Amino acid sequence: MAPHQVYVGVVGAGVPDSATDGPAEEVGRLLAERGAVVVCGGMTGVMEAACRGAKSAGGTTIGILPTDDRGHANPYVDVAIATGMGEMRNALIVRTVDVVVAVGGEYGTLSEIALALKIGRPVVTLGSWDLSADVVPASSPQEAAAQAFDLIS
Amino acid sequence: MAPHQVYVGVVGAGVPDSATDGPAEEVGRLLAERGAVVVCGGMTGVMEAACRGAKSAGGTTIGILPTDDRGHANPYVDVAIATGMGEMRNALIVRTVDVVVAVGGEYGTLSEIALALKIGRPVVTLGSWDLSADVVPASSPQEAAAQAFDLIS
Amino acid sequence: MAPHQVYVGVVGAGVPDSATDGPAEEVGRLLAERGAVVVCGGMTGVMEAACRGAKSAGGTTIGILPTDDRGHANPYVDVAIATGMGEMRNALIVRTVDVVVAVGGEYGTLSEIALALKIGRPVVTLGSWDLSADVVPASSPQEAAAQAFDLIS
Amino acid sequence: MAPHQVYVGVVGAGVPDSATDGPAEEVGRLLAERGAVVVCGGMTGVMEAACRGAKSAGGTTIGILPTDDRGHANPYVDVAIATGMGEMRNALIVRTVDVVVAVGGEYGTLSEIALALKIGRPVVTLGSWDLSADVVPASSPQEAAAQAFDLIS
Repeated sequence: MAPHQVYVGVVGAGVPDSATDGPAEEVGRLLAERGAVVVCGGMTGVMEAACRGAKSAGGTTIGILPTDDRGHANPYVDVAIATGMGEMRNALIVRTVDVVVAVGGEYGTLSEIALALKIGRPVVTLGSWDLSADVVPASSPQEAAAQAFDLIS
Repeated sequence: MAPHQVYVGVVGAGVPDSATDGPAEEVGRLLAERGAVVVCGGMTGVMEAACRGAKSAGGTTIGILPTDDRGHANPYVDVAIATGMGEMRNALIVRTVDVVVAVGGEYGTLSEIALALKIGRPVVTLGSWDLSADVVPASSPQEAAAQAFDLIS
Repeated sequence: MAPHQVYVGVVGAGVPDSATDGPAEEVGRLLAERGAVVVCGGMTGVMEAACRGAKSAGGTTIGILPTDDRGHANPYVDVAIATGMGEMRNALIVRTVDVVVAVGGEYGTLSEIALALKIGRPVVTLGSWDLSADVVPASSPQEAAAQAFDLIS
Repeated sequence: MAPHQVYVGVVGAGVPDSATDGPAEEVGRLLAERGAVVVCGGMTGVMEAACRGAKSAGGTTIGILPTDDRGHANPYVDVAIATGMGEMRNALIVRTVDVVVAVGGEYGTLSEIALALKIGRPVVTLGSWDLSADVVPASSPQEAAAQAFDLIS
């Protein structure tokens, strides 16, 4: 566990949804198997699923919370940062990672994709906003995890 | 000039572009004529054009800068806030306004649209990202300014 | 009204207190008479007093609020920025000004003094924390306003 | 490693100084022995010493960096958050911890003490700013670590 490990942001909706939580858990697991630290917003839905997957593979998870209370972190978060910054913390998530994987997603997710592209972090999408040639769409969790590593190697 | 005036965010690309700067200037002018304070990122391109338009109608302009130097504000900014927060300041712009008008735009603009929708600020687009039923597209500066006021009245 | 005017932060307690509100109002008035924009946290107490003084001299006032609601600004604020960042916004206040005048003050004020000194903004104190040789104590509102201008000329 | 562990902020000057680095290392070691996660600004000086101490006892360390580059973290940081917020990140450090131990310190440290007191986080000082009855001074690393736990139990 060290800052020079690969940090991958996994972003997506906070409302639990079976259509995205399964894929997000698989993405988290695959990223952790390959040695990445999984960084997310620390709450429920895709964030919790990605952390659960990463922990199932013995990985490390970071939750950068919108609230100022670490107790709001989902149970699969190892390290919680309580920002109290609301959705402004989305910019923190994308700054601190090497690459972003967006799974499904609503407007918060879209803001993370856009902020990532703005500052030059590559973005892989899995059933998410398909915006432009700058985003790399994946058709499966396996492809998403593989693309994430390819984009930063 | 007071906080209970209407504050309208005008967001768009920072690179000067005749396709968007003309419409942005017209949007700024029309908003100021109707008594709105124009809030933007304070830099060049659409931001400068919107401020120039607002000042031509005697309006007030606020620039919320990404850098920590007020001297970076364009010459049509009345009040500059030097945040030093980079693109993270996009969340500040949308928080402090009542409604957002996006003119053209790249990924920074997209992040502002997404953050606005996330926190419930209505968004009018003029030649910008056309994302969903939640965004109100306008076909002219006149329509954009009118829609902005309609959405908050 | 322009970014190249002098911006002076006036910081102090948010709880109204006759021992500090009178001096703060006088500081605000004197700063505005000399052409400075008064920047503060936008709330009550010293912040409101400083804005009231500045407005009595025809000056411009900026309130950088801790909440995400412009309606929380005191009635003497011309331009309100609703940050939603809580006390984290103290760093924004000191970044965007040229010099800080601290009137009385509790821990929030102390944080503003410390952040200002950390980033090289000069600090004048009036009945406030007297920390070190880096802070310039003043014994009256007149002296505080004069020192603020001296320190940046 | 979990968010419901105790998180202790160890804050102090970034310039290496034998007068404070030794005590900071000892504080970090003692906190980790008692099961606390050590949170700091992630850079050199007191921050690095505290992390080194915590790691010598098998603890976990979090560095909340002022820059936007994780590579700036000292070698004893386990988890780095690259904020790009400069000294504004001091507010993040105190928000995310349960208690703060200040070792020596300059103005950045003073801002962290003040922000902590502002939001109700208890503060232990070791050779640092001795401000008021609200700060608990310690005369040794052992006493500082013990006081930190006492204040939140």
